[in-house]
Amino acid sequence: MTHKTDMNIFSQLESEVRSYVRSFPTVFTKAKGHKMWDESGKEYIDFFSGAGALNYGHNDPLMKEKLVEYILSDGITHSLDMATAPKAVFLEEFNNTILKPRDMNYKVMFPGPTGANTVESALKLARKVTGRTDIISFTNGFHGMTIGALSVTGNSFKRKGAGIPLTNTVTMPFDNFVSDELDTLEYLERFLDDGGSGVAIPAAIILETVQGEGGINAARYEWLRKVEDICRRWDILLIVDDVQAGVGRTGTFFSFEKAGIKPDIICLSKSISGYGTPFALTLIKPEYDIWAPGEHNGTFRGNNHAFVTATAALSYWKDGSLEQKIERQSERIFSFLNGLVEKYPELEGEVRGRGFMAGICSPKEGLAGEIAAEAFSRGLIMETAGPSDEVFKLFPALTISDEGLEEGLRILEASIESSVKPKELVTNA
Amino acid sequence: MTHKTDMNIFSQLESEVRSYVRSFPTVFTKAKGHKMWDESGKEYIDFFSGAGALNYGHNDPLMKEKLVEYILSDGITHSLDMATAPKAVFLEEFNNTILKPRDMNYKVMFPGPTGANTVESALKLARKVTGRTDIISFTNGFHGMTIGALSVTGNSFKRKGAGIPLTNTVTMPFDNFVSDELDTLEYLERFLDDGGSGVAIPAAIILETVQGEGGINAARYEWLRKVEDICRRWDILLIVDDVQAGVGRTGTFFSFEKAGIKPDIICLSKSISGYGTPFALTLIKPEYDIWAPGEHNGTFRGNNHAFVTATAALSYWKDGSLEQKIERQSERIFSFLNGLVEKYPELEGEVRGRGFMAGICSPKEGLAGEIAAEAFSRGLIMETAGPSDEVFKLFPALTISDEGLEEGLRILEASIESSVKPKELVTNA
Amino acid sequence: MTHKTDMNIFSQLESEVRSYVRSFPTVFTKAKGHKMWDESGKEYIDFFSGAGALNYGHNDPLMKEKLVEYILSDGITHSLDMATAPKAVFLEEFNNTILKPRDMNYKVMFPGPTGANTVESALKLARKVTGRTDIISFTNGFHGMTIGALSVTGNSFKRKGAGIPLTNTVTMPFDNFVSDELDTLEYLERFLDDGGSGVAIPAAIILETVQGEGGINAARYEWLRKVEDICRRWDILLIVDDVQAGVGRTGTFFSFEKAGIKPDIICLSKSISGYGTPFALTLIKPEYDIWAPGEHNGTFRGNNHAFVTATAALSYWKDGSLEQKIERQSERIFSFLNGLVEKYPELEGEVRGRGFMAGICSPKEGLAGEIAAEAFSRGLIMETAGPSDEVFKLFPALTISDEGLEEGLRILEASIESSVKPKELVTNA
Amino acid sequence: MTHKTDMNIFSQLESEVRSYVRSFPTVFTKAKGHKMWDESGKEYIDFFSGAGALNYGHNDPLMKEKLVEYILSDGITHSLDMATAPKAVFLEEFNNTILKPRDMNYKVMFPGPTGANTVESALKLARKVTGRTDIISFTNGFHGMTIGALSVTGNSFKRKGAGIPLTNTVTMPFDNFVSDELDTLEYLERFLDDGGSGVAIPAAIILETVQGEGGINAARYEWLRKVEDICRRWDILLIVDDVQAGVGRTGTFFSFEKAGIKPDIICLSKSISGYGTPFALTLIKPEYDIWAPGEHNGTFRGNNHAFVTATAALSYWKDGSLEQKIERQSERIFSFLNGLVEKYPELEGEVRGRGFMAGICSPKEGLAGEIAAEAFSRGLIMETAGPSDEVFKLFPALTISDEGLEEGLRILEASIESSVKPKELVTNA
Repeated sequence: MTHKTDMNIFSQLESEVRSYVRSFPTVFTKAKGHKMWDESGKEYIDFFSGAGALNYGHNDPLMKEKLVEYILSDGITHSLDMATAPKAVFLEEFNNTILKPRDMNYKVMFPGPTGANTVESALKLARKVTGRTDIISFTNGFHGMTIGALSVTGNSFKRKGAGIPLTNTVTMPFDNFVSDELDTLEYLERFLDDGGSGVAIPAAIILETVQGEGGINAARYEWLRKVEDICRRWDILLIVDDVQAGVGRTGTFFSFEKAGIKPDIICLSKSISGYGTPFALTLIKPEYDIWAPGEHNGTFRGNNHAFVTATAALSYWKDGSLEQKIERQSERIFSFLNGLVEKYPELEGEVRGRGFMAGICSPKEGLAGEIAAEAFSRGLIMETAGPSDEVFKLFPALTISDEGLEEGLRILEASIESSVKPKELVTNA
Repeated sequence: MTHKTDMNIFSQLESEVRSYVRSFPTVFTKAKGHKMWDESGKEYIDFFSGAGALNYGHNDPLMKEKLVEYILSDGITHSLDMATAPKAVFLEEFNNTILKPRDMNYKVMFPGPTGANTVESALKLARKVTGRTDIISFTNGFHGMTIGALSVTGNSFKRKGAGIPLTNTVTMPFDNFVSDELDTLEYLERFLDDGGSGVAIPAAIILETVQGEGGINAARYEWLRKVEDICRRWDILLIVDDVQAGVGRTGTFFSFEKAGIKPDIICLSKSISGYGTPFALTLIKPEYDIWAPGEHNGTFRGNNHAFVTATAALSYWKDGSLEQKIERQSERIFSFLNGLVEKYPELEGEVRGRGFMAGICSPKEGLAGEIAAEAFSRGLIMETAGPSDEVFKLFPALTISDEGLEEGLRILEASIESSVKPKELVTNA
Repeated sequence: MTHKTDMNIFSQLESEVRSYVRSFPTVFTKAKGHKMWDESGKEYIDFFSGAGALNYGHNDPLMKEKLVEYILSDGITHSLDMATAPKAVFLEEFNNTILKPRDMNYKVMFPGPTGANTVESALKLARKVTGRTDIISFTNGFHGMTIGALSVTGNSFKRKGAGIPLTNTVTMPFDNFVSDELDTLEYLERFLDDGGSGVAIPAAIILETVQGEGGINAARYEWLRKVEDICRRWDILLIVDDVQAGVGRTGTFFSFEKAGIKPDIICLSKSISGYGTPFALTLIKPEYDIWAPGEHNGTFRGNNHAFVTATAALSYWKDGSLEQKIERQSERIFSFLNGLVEKYPELEGEVRGRGFMAGICSPKEGLAGEIAAEAFSRGLIMETAGPSDEVFKLFPALTISDEGLEEGLRILEASIESSVKPKELVTNA
Repeated sequence: MTHKTDMNIFSQLESEVRSYVRSFPTVFTKAKGHKMWDESGKEYIDFFSGAGALNYGHNDPLMKEKLVEYILSDGITHSLDMATAPKAVFLEEFNNTILKPRDMNYKVMFPGPTGANTVESALKLARKVTGRTDIISFTNGFHGMTIGALSVTGNSFKRKGAGIPLTNTVTMPFDNFVSDELDTLEYLERFLDDGGSGVAIPAAIILETVQGEGGINAARYEWLRKVEDICRRWDILLIVDDVQAGVGRTGTFFSFEKAGIKPDIICLSKSISGYGTPFALTLIKPEYDIWAPGEHNGTFRGNNHAFVTATAALSYWKDGSLEQKIERQSERIFSFLNGLVEKYPELEGEVRGRGFMAGICSPKEGLAGEIAAEAFSRGLIMETAGPSDEVFKLFPALTISDEGLEEGLRILEASIESSVKPKELVTNA
């Protein structure tokens, strides 16, 4: 801990594309559960959780034990899509623990170890199944940075990064996009229904039930059911991208469970490996699993370290205790946030989200970013979201203790207080 | 080892897209160096090396030690692009061990942990730098399965998998594509030179110096220098996709070192983590590192397990001993293959490749696949390549012992003998 | 007139793509003003007017005289974009008669002699001026059959005819598309305003003020002004495609005059030549006329027969008498149509349109087509429009006499009566 | 003839896109046969022929007579695709005079009155017939300015004018593109044959047998037969764009007659109306005429003036006299051009073309343009072609008299002499 890394290493050797190191300018060395430490020994509460990739916190003891044991035994590390013992175990356990109890019958595809990979595989398959080319996605959706995934992502800064027109996609308004009154699906269906609308019947509709990067926008369950209904009536595949909202983040393993819908294809990544190692799954209804062997492939589909930790992570889902804990603490989070909005009217805040995917949107330019920066200096790691970074978001580990949660909320409030007050002083000056 | 996994797990639970499990129908449990073992205890020589992701063999002892030590210390596992101690160490070591001694000045980008990710980031950046949209790639090039990477990949089966037209790319003939006599670059330049050619000056030319999936086609150094020269004269960025041919596979760390060229962007993945864990780098000449922060991002850019093992792997490159070993054994491989072609004229074989990236192309339909299948049954893992799977390829670990290599070659010959002989009997029958 | 043409000539020699010959199965030989005659001498009232290309009726005497005189004098017929005397005269007269009195300062481009050509030229120029790629068009817009024009056309049957994805365009809801209450421009602007909407700021918005093929949908003037305002605020070019609604069809020379807007680019074709010969203009605000010479060209830009008749046609616009006549007769048409809707509730009819661009929409499947077929058999030529051909439309010549108009309306009512009544009988049977 | 038009009318009122008026800065008033006159009474020999739209010269007496007669009789002018008497006559006459005697069985489509329209219709139909998306075109091909036609056009200046990427097309090398030795079709077929080439089997191959705008490049008959053979073996549609090279320009009605090939789709426009009025045809083998009614349409498909003159023009093809005349005079043209190249070595000239489609290519920058400008000042109208305007081209009317031809050639030589000589003086100075 006495070593002091020269931060210039990053500015000199790493590309300008680096980003979080600019928001959190310190060198992290150690992490456990909901805490992280930097080189100087400073402790941080982590309300960021690897952008949703660390739902079980850092370095979960059981997963760690299983992983080290596996490595020490010289188990296969990298296997493409050959058969290995840990892969067989994962397939069975995932089926038994997650799919079967939810009455879900899906084939499991290992599409390569990132969210973009599972999305790209889902889009390809939907196009193959239907013979159609277009995909409908939603405003402020975020699905990844590769050209296929980017084409269904709304953010204009990211889209421009493509350097070429992004095609074969149509963006429709997400729930509440235009106003609270407007039923955005009436609008969508009007486009499908009118043969002169310029919008072709798509291969698939892809959505996140709660948009993370797009600003913590939670679609109402009723809205989700209507989307599913539209898909059924128009013979469109429904793809739920549960990369960020899945694996318990919104309170249930899949984010759409309470809506009662059954997507045709489900994209999982981020926390699915449990330990933060790269991993992704594409779940496919058996009738749509019409891939030819090798039609989509990739070098790192067989990340056995991830099979091992992902299997261990399933132990959290053997009973309902984690879900109950999330529900209980989520209520605390939302009541706290609602209290903040009331207490600090300067925020002009709007509370958003579901489960452990929460945030406050403030229309005041730059304010969300200031609060996050202030929080960091006080030992709380948070980030912002939304097209103008107008939302500061809370993504604690699902496993966080009540003490950890309260400590984080306390720092958050202090940061808000500090961000709001000085501004007034400046204004009054 | 006494456990017997039901192979039906895979056919029942895993998607039809699975592929290698069909070629190698057994459950692997353990691996070390150039050897793998399956559940029944059967030992295999590995001439496949994770399709080039395991250049240092399986579970290298030094990397394993460092990795376990790191995990046990609760080092940060997942960090996006925050600063962590192992990342700083990797950046410095990679710069000192690989870049500086080769007089290479490049910024390092962590684009997400797969080959497709580094390729997608390279294409985006080239388009941003030049303001142009088109990319020239080569026949039988392979760059990945996401839409952007697929658009520069030649294979028609993979391309059709996109389900949409792949655009903003032009395919030009790789070295020796049409015939030995035709200078394919004279042709390419004619297209650039003629304002009526229908081919716009591209943002970049992307190539593999030795095409792996495309059939072990090694471009001549002179051809590579001419490509670089064309890029310089037309102000086109040169991207070398060294995902498979790099990290020593052709005999030097970068596959283009002996050609003496300096690409503008270099794509690395597969063996760069050393241990087979997902990892990728994009190397960028500083003058082209004009990314805005976060313009390309991804959840698994900060795979610290990979930073740790990748740093350990650099120890192989502190002196020239590995390169010398590869050169010596490569000569053995190619002389053996040439001998095979002579000895088994039924193959109508053509030896291809460079370094430890070798193969024999046989125009006899299905023969390469038969030989690989026969080899598997005899305890040698190999795969085929080329647009019609007409090449069986040898990808031993760079660290393989002479004994291991000879044993593999012996099995290979036996497999050829067996594959060639029965066919004649059948033919004669 | 005694000659009898074998209709099999068309089925045997002409492509299956032929269409109106199926609706109007007779051989026409002669036409004058608002009347046509077929081979058997049968007379027809023309409420079709060449789909808006014959606003001045057939074979206008003055134009005919000037055209024959010109041909007899061996004037230049075809001149590409060389200078000819009739072209100079047309340019001056068009400027003096049409542009100057309306305080409109526009450069005149001759883009090739069809509506698709002027639209293609407008889209190209808007992209060049702004450096952007996308175009926003509206539901049920119709702009032509070439790939560029088709990409902004809404009709799904026509779009599928492209055989490739149509790209770089976004369809937004036209006035009243979803419902009478919804302000479709609030919706559109929400997409422009939100950086995460997936809709890029476009190069241009293209629209028809009254959609012809799309179902005789007249945008409110207020809506048009709001579109212009959006274009100004977002620095988007406004293109009005006045190919069908222009040249007096809606009551004024340009269809947008009463709305008080000033489009950046205006597309004219159909009736601009006056005599029904192929001709088109693109009008461009001088500051956007940044074409390089020859950047868009075409063989038939210099149709001097059209210059001659188009100049003669301008005589109709020297004073306000034609506009007054249209207004007076238009009132008659709409009051008659409203009366029909009331008198024949079985139509469930909705009167649509503006000026001499009128129609009744009936949701009863096939009914509009039946009425048009019945009208044809009774000597009235009409066609249907709308995505499901649910509108029968009235496009009389602007020059039609009161007697001609009344005769046409009389036949129309008889056709409706006949189409509605038998159906009830059938239903009652 | 005493009227003097102010040339400022064009610069002030017409768009900057105007082009030929810059090369030929005078106001033309009258034309007959191979001659044109300007306002001042100056006479010009026309070696330009409306870029191939005036193969029968200006204002042919028979066509003129028939056209005036038709107009005076109030024949239908504009008919979309309704049946009219002149259309029936044209269909029959075209079939009897052109198709049947050549043993050609094709359906006739009227796709709209321009070359771009027939090309767009051909591409659409080929895609519909095959279900494929890509089209192969050739270097320096020219097919039109609308987005679909432009996507198969080679010229980079024109392509950039699109403002968007042009997709779903692949450019292959035309005959002799790279060098005289290289067989460009061996190259093309290699791409089709190799499943990893990145080039999909296309819907169609489109070509001009002699490229006009591209530089008067005549493909060898053997090369054309090989293209047809490739199309047959790969089940690709062959589209011959005979818009410029057809209607006698190369010596036979269709430019491909002597090659002995039978294209699947043939595009005709320019001189097909005979009189220079807008008109186009798409000829389709009956088995591929699978259009749905109205799937491709357009306002000016029924240009009856063109039906009348096109029918009259067919009188030139009742016997072989025109073909014989062209052959005889073509020999004179080519022997004269070869003489010029010999006599003026400063040209470094290369004679190109076939029939009445001839030119000399000179690598000396700007020289071809200088010669054409000099010729214009001396009373000869000619234009340049090729990607760098490096070819001056001779396109006399097919009906030109021997005297007219000789006079034109005389002026041409004088212009060359004058353009070459002064340059040497300047150089020597």
